Amino acid sequence: MSLLSPDAFLDRLRDVGARRYHDRHPFHQRLHSGRCTRGEVQAWALNRYAYQAAIPRKDATLIARLDDPALRRAWRQRLVDHDGGADGEGGIERWLRLCESLGFARADVVAFRGVLPATRFAVGAYVEFVRERPLLEAVASSLTELFSPQVIKTRVAGMLAHYDFVSAESLSYFTARPEQASRDVESALAYVTAHATTPADQEAVVAALEFKCDVLWAMLDALDHAYGEPGQIPPGAFEPES
Amino acid sequence: MSLLSPDAFLDRLRDVGARRYHDRHPFHQRLHSGRCTRGEVQAWALNRYAYQAAIPRKDATLIARLDDPALRRAWRQRLVDHDGGADGEGGIERWLRLCESLGFARADVVAFRGVLPATRFAVGAYVEFVRERPLLEAVASSLTELFSPQVIKTRVAGMLAHYDFVSAESLSYFTARPEQASRDVESALAYVTAHATTPADQEAVVAALEFKCDVLWAMLDALDHAYGEPGQIPPGAFEPES
Repeated sequence: MSLLSPDAFLDRLRDVGARRYHDRHPFHQRLHSGRCTRGEVQAWALNRYAYQAAIPRKDATLIARLDDPALRRAWRQRLVDHDGGADGEGGIERWLRLCESLGFARADVVAFRGVLPATRFAVGAYVEFVRERPLLEAVASSLTELFSPQVIKTRVAGMLAHYDFVSAESLSYFTARPEQASRDVESALAYVTAHATTPADQEAVVAALEFKCDVLWAMLDALDHAYGEPGQIPPGAFEPES
Repeated sequence: MSLLSPDAFLDRLRDVGARRYHDRHPFHQRLHSGRCTRGEVQAWALNRYAYQAAIPRKDATLIARLDDPALRRAWRQRLVDHDGGADGEGGIERWLRLCESLGFARADVVAFRGVLPATRFAVGAYVEFVRERPLLEAVASSLTELFSPQVIKTRVAGMLAHYDFVSAESLSYFTARPEQASRDVESALAYVTAHATTPADQEAVVAALEFKCDVLWAMLDALDHAYGEPGQIPPGAFEPES
């Protein structure tokens, strides 16, 4: 493969999203078209919390590897978005409120009680990837944010239209995300474009983005298998009321 | 040893500082009493830059290990202090300006050109400690900030009084530090006090603080050996003009 131009490279990345981003997963399609049970929506929120809660640790793991104060500052904004500026603020807190609105006790969610093992493993693999892989790939693994803003809009609109147990307030996590994600992806994309200077680098970036899509996809696979029809909930995982 | 009361434990920590903090090092005493050559002051600033530059990576390493958003927020403030909010701000930038005011080219400093290997090894050991040791010890290793505010005041006053090549502006790094350090140490001390619940924990905290004192002390040992009288500058290290 020869070196792609910046535009062709971006097309290549977008093509990964078109084929592998988790909005294409059957569970996700059911989620935003109103075909999930309340138990499935609960399980989705609970398991996704485990992902959300790990994101600042993932981002700090990356900051710890960066030598450039300007890059660290750009990445630090992600910590601000997720952890907030004070108690009661930030994305993790808003996700907790979503879980509470769906009937979970906060302490259970924070303790990851009932989270699927496959979710934990996928989240762990993501943090591990960002810690261990070459920096270019670690940064590139965040590029799923290229695809998230549009998906968030579809998801929120669909969930509000179809589930009477979901309110706009309970979905407030998503209000800020499209703008945050667009800003974040801009700096990550600039880094990746500047540092992927060989065909092998570009392939490594594509592979990192595919890996990250795999993480998100595996989380939905696990939900689908456990809570879909016919579901098979593994021992210890959240059991919806029947 | 039995469990110390919070007050007795704090006294024990302060005793470590009284015996082992780097203000007791002969090089430091020469530095702030005007008995360092210009070359020694330059070497001190250059080598200390390598320490300063690693601190946000060290702090992000710790944040990456913290599960509690509130603790991460408290620690995030350290990233803000050192990396600033924009280009031209923050502690690292101010330390770079000190190095420039002493005659170094910024690019050389940023590239750690001429930094003593022993400095790099000590700084590396500090980051490694925070990454690998139990969290209690990783937090405790920051507690040298118990001792820094007073030392900074003595150092700045001494350097301004004795060196005509040092100005208040060039020492602006230190202006904000006493207040920042006092705030930082408060949260670290609260964590350590709450989590060191056995005599063995308290001993581990003391050992972590001693380790950190060793890091700072080793940096001054290396400066003293290389640039003191008679100095023996290792190959590749900064050579002052004679």
